[in-house]
Order: sequence, then structure tokens, then C-alpha cells
Amino acid sequence: MKIRILWVGKTKEQYLIEGIDRYLKLLGHMAQVSVIDIKEEKGKPRGPALTAEGGRLLKQTRSYTLLNEKGREFTSVEFAGYLGKKVNFDFVVGGPYGVSEEIMEKAADTISLSRMTFTHEMVRLVFLEQLYRAMTIIKGMEYHH
Amino acid sequence: MKIRILWVGKTKEQYLIEGIDRYLKLLGHMAQVSVIDIKEEKGKPRGPALTAEGGRLLKQTRSYTLLNEKGREFTSVEFAGYLGKKVNFDFVVGGPYGVSEEIMEKAADTISLSRMTFTHEMVRLVFLEQLYRAMTIIKGMEYHH
Repeated sequence: MKIRILWVGKTKEQYLIEGIDRYLKLLGHMAQVSVIDIKEEKGKPRGPALTAEGGRLLKQTRSYTLLNEKGREFTSVEFAGYLGKKVNFDFVVGGPYGVSEEIMEKAADTISLSRMTFTHEMVRLVFLEQLYRAMTIIKGMEYHH
Repeated sequence: MKIRILWVGKTKEQYLIEGIDRYLKLLGHMAQVSVIDIKEEKGKPRGPALTAEGGRLLKQTRSYTLLNEKGREFTSVEFAGYLGKKVNFDFVVGGPYGVSEEIMEKAADTISLSRMTFTHEMVRLVFLEQLYRAMTIIKGMEYHH
């Protein structure tokens, strides 16, 4: 399985960088997982129009699953089922201002980790842990924290 | 507002300890927040009967909101509304094996951060960030990451 995660801006919080690295390492043993940092467009709430940041995203992927609190919710087992359906996945995680409406509309699918709003950096950690959990479910392995 | 968070077992992951401390400090400026570590009962999946761990929990609180993935979901704004309704809150976060059915049944309320299963340690971080976010909403403050 080949999973690309495209997120906007670099992770700044040190403790999150550590957690993210931890799960990327765990995931590296189970799938081909790569992270693409999309350069952030600073200080502008996102509106309907495509931003330069959005343009950079679309240069990298044309078929992606967007993470957004309004998207479809799964249990972890359901998410494993979703992940098991395809061989390649591109997941997009927006920046501090989310994504423009165009990026929302162009998404092949939109999924949600929670109805609650998480910080865009914390989403990365939570999502990677879910990916790892899903891979252990797919492979029928015991989950090691 | 007085919030007590009762969780089972100490946090072991260093990066999570750092994140948790960060939000506890931020919350400390906005409410009276305390954490009570309940000693964990090791290595037993939880069943219907009250465990020694559950007994220790009930010694500390008789009216609590349990965090459980099957509980009621909120948006962050709805959660702020929920939090604004009372002056005192006890929140219970289970350990690696969750809680016994008796602790589930005795809960005054059960709320969920996500339909997905998070590690019991990561729940702590995510929940504290939501509490902080809710407090900024209640107080009409800007959210600082």
C-alpha cells in the first residue's frame, strides 16, 4: 500500500514532531508512507477561491481524500475497511486556516476524525495513529502503543 | 469553573506528557483544573463487574462525565455550550482496557471525542486541547496555539 500525506506547513510544536516521527516510523514497517509538506500561505482565512497554497496542492495530487471535521466519520475498524479498498491513497490535511472551497470541492472524498475542531498540527498526530491502527487491523496484528 | 479529570494510570509517553503539561498550564489560567491519577489495575480486559480500579474511581467521584467513543458527540462550539452549563465537572478517562460496565452505567453522562478509538494516553492530550478550546470560546478569547 502506498500512502501519501500532503499537509500544509511544517509542524512547529516539538512534542508533536516527536509523536509524528514515532508513528511515521511504525507505519514505515507496514506500508509505503510519505509526507509532503505544502508551503503555507500565511495569514489569510480561506475563501472560495483557490489560493497559491491550493495550487501547490493540486500540482501534487489530482485525486485525494480530504480530512475535514464535516466529513464522513468512521470507527477505527470502518476506517481500516476504507483503507483496505484501494492500493494508493493521497490524504490532504489543511493548514491553520483550513483549505479553500475549491480544494474541498475537488476532493474525491472527505473524511473526519472528529466533529470537534483539532489544531491542524494535532490532526497530523491523531491521523497517523489512526493509520497505524488501521494497518494493524488490516494485517491482523496486535496493536502496540 | 472547577474541573477535575480522573484518569487511570500515569502517562508514559514523554511527548504526550509534554503536550499534556502545556495544555494544563494554559487551562490553569482559565479555570480550576486538576488531574487525579487513579491507580491502574494491570492486564485485565474490563468486564461487567466493578474492578478495584473502578472502586478507586468511585471513591473520588459520584457524579462524572465519562469519555467513551460510543458517547455523545459534539462540535467544539457545542462542547463549550455543554461546559458552560455547570460550575463543576468531573471527567473520567479510562485506562488501556477502558472501564468496566459498572463505571459506564454509573456515569451521569457519556461524551465522545471521536467515533474512532484513540490510545488512552492520546485521549488525554486531545481532551485537554478541547477543554482549552472550549474555555476560549466561553470567554470569547482568541485561540492561541
